[in-house]
Amino acid sequence: MPQGKPLTVPEDGLTTRQRRHRPLLIVHTGEMKGKSTAAFGLALRGWHQGWSIGVFQFVKSAKWKVGEEAAFRALDEVHTETGKGGPVDWNKMGEGWSWARKKGSTEDHAAAALEGWREIARRLDDHTHDLYVLDEFNYPLHWGWIDPNEVVETLRMRPGRQHVVITGRYAPDVLVAAADLVVDMTKVKHPMDAGQKGQRGIEW
Amino acid sequence: MPQGKPLTVPEDGLTTRQRRHRPLLIVHTGEMKGKSTAAFGLALRGWHQGWSIGVFQFVKSAKWKVGEEAAFRALDEVHTETGKGGPVDWNKMGEGWSWARKKGSTEDHAAAALEGWREIARRLDDHTHDLYVLDEFNYPLHWGWIDPNEVVETLRMRPGRQHVVITGRYAPDVLVAAADLVVDMTKVKHPMDAGQKGQRGIEW
Repeated sequence: MPQGKPLTVPEDGLTTRQRRHRPLLIVHTGEMKGKSTAAFGLALRGWHQGWSIGVFQFVKSAKWKVGEEAAFRALDEVHTETGKGGPVDWNKMGEGWSWARKKGSTEDHAAAALEGWREIARRLDDHTHDLYVLDEFNYPLHWGWIDPNEVVETLRMRPGRQHVVITGRYAPDVLVAAADLVVDMTKVKHPMDAGQKGQRGIEW
Repeated sequence: MPQGKPLTVPEDGLTTRQRRHRPLLIVHTGEMKGKSTAAFGLALRGWHQGWSIGVFQFVKSAKWKVGEEAAFRALDEVHTETGKGGPVDWNKMGEGWSWARKKGSTEDHAAAALEGWREIARRLDDHTHDLYVLDEFNYPLHWGWIDPNEVVETLRMRPGRQHVVITGRYAPDVLVAAADLVVDMTKVKHPMDAGQKGQRGIEW
């Protein structure tokens, strides 16, 4: 809820308006569900603002998380046809990055992940999107496929007002330190503890 | 990610398939952002499955959270026009419940909240929707406007396969006890701690 009462007023020389429009680096981490869904829920707000949204899913399989993808592809079409909302550019590692010339190179997940990051860095440098969703991006950082320090440095230097949301367990410390907003999705209770299995519409 | 390895197999006499399709009661609570956005992100998956989705926002102002509303209203139109996804029925307390004959009774928030719950109970009894998003519903429970025991009993008795997601701080203990899945959105870091204010596209 937009209550907006800051606890302190920083001595950064910025006006309230400037602070209000500062680009955010947001991290959703922790063991529990809700990291990706909250990122895509946030992207709905951005879509409504008419923002250009770039989604980069660092998932191994093209079959994962098709629900969000279908919904945002539909919203992108709504934008194209009616001008409502903003454009959504959806990219998925598991099916080969959309911009990659040779597909099927995704057997090497580490190389594919790094290739994804390189493209994101280029787009940040060009101020291509207003909101970037780097879904499950914490895993390639955690596994050492991409250097977290390089990522943080690139994010720190990004021009203009580009918001970035990064999801996944095991957010590296250096990323948490650099982020403006970090949420840990903490487990209170999970149906798999009671032997229940994942299901359609809920898990994907 | 759909990994789906249950920790234990319960002795409930159900097959894996039956357990897989059990209706879930999900609660997103805690002090941090992500409770509502994760619920709406989940609703995107449900939309893609063709589910009928009923959203009930227990917010005081019609102006709150317009981003998600605009996106889901667009997705509902996509469904009507193309048959893709499922229908979305959006109801907001702050503008007077859509089914209520006399509007403007929302000055009495307690009465309006209870009226919202009564309609939800009727729809659950009729198996109207496949997924119910009761956004910010924990507040009227917390404030004693609606009896949490009555809610839990109604949810326990709901027929068929109706998933329910409830968001908001201060989830009552009896609701947490009854839920299948409970996530606490835990604060690691928030920009308001550093004096930053809420902003468009991020907070709403």
